[in-house]
Amino acid sequence: MVRYSVLDRSFAALSDPTRRQLLERLANGPATMSELAQPFEITLPGLMKHVRILEEAHLVITEKHGRTRQCRLGAEHLDDAAHWIQTYQRRWERRLDRLGDFLTKQQKGARR
Amino acid sequence: MVRYSVLDRSFAALSDPTRRQLLERLANGPATMSELAQPFEITLPGLMKHVRILEEAHLVITEKHGRTRQCRLGAEHLDDAAHWIQTYQRRWERRLDRLGDFLTKQQKGARR
Repeated sequence: MVRYSVLDRSFAALSDPTRRQLLERLANGPATMSELAQPFEITLPGLMKHVRILEEAHLVITEKHGRTRQCRLGAEHLDDAAHWIQTYQRRWERRLDRLGDFLTKQQKGARR
Repeated sequence: MVRYSVLDRSFAALSDPTRRQLLERLANGPATMSELAQPFEITLPGLMKHVRILEEAHLVITEKHGRTRQCRLGAEHLDDAAHWIQTYQRRWERRLDRLGDFLTKQQKGARR
């Protein structure tokens, strides 16, 4: 059996447009399953499948309140995904800056 | 046929640990296919499959130089992925701030 890291699960969960829309909705506040389903042309089992994938990635937390299930954003692991991207972006930007400096020096040298 | 958006492809590409490691390597500078393969216990066809997925997500750009293929980071679409996450993170953080304010006010009210 393959073991998936939280980062694998987070990015895989974010790769689906319906799941991203569910997170966009939950960024405005918690919602019950039926409130979540409303704007989508989706069956309840279809929605539950998406919510389960988001839950497994810790991007969504669900809690049973009586007969309804409340969903809210689990923002912590969204941080992990953002952090991963930012680390490599910054490293890349520093490289581009160094390349820029190098090219500027080369140009100055060529003008002499 | 399902049409995938760049964001779908970006997040799907990032969901694999080998592909993330390839991007981490390329954040330090461009590399040929065989330089990329070196630290991984991976066959060349296996590597090429991963690179193709990264290329389709515009996260990696490859260029043929004579008999070798040079790979470099296509950071632009990493920006898109980071931007999507940050938008919903910020919205969520603002909500948490408002909730904090509300709870502080409630506590003050209870003390009176």
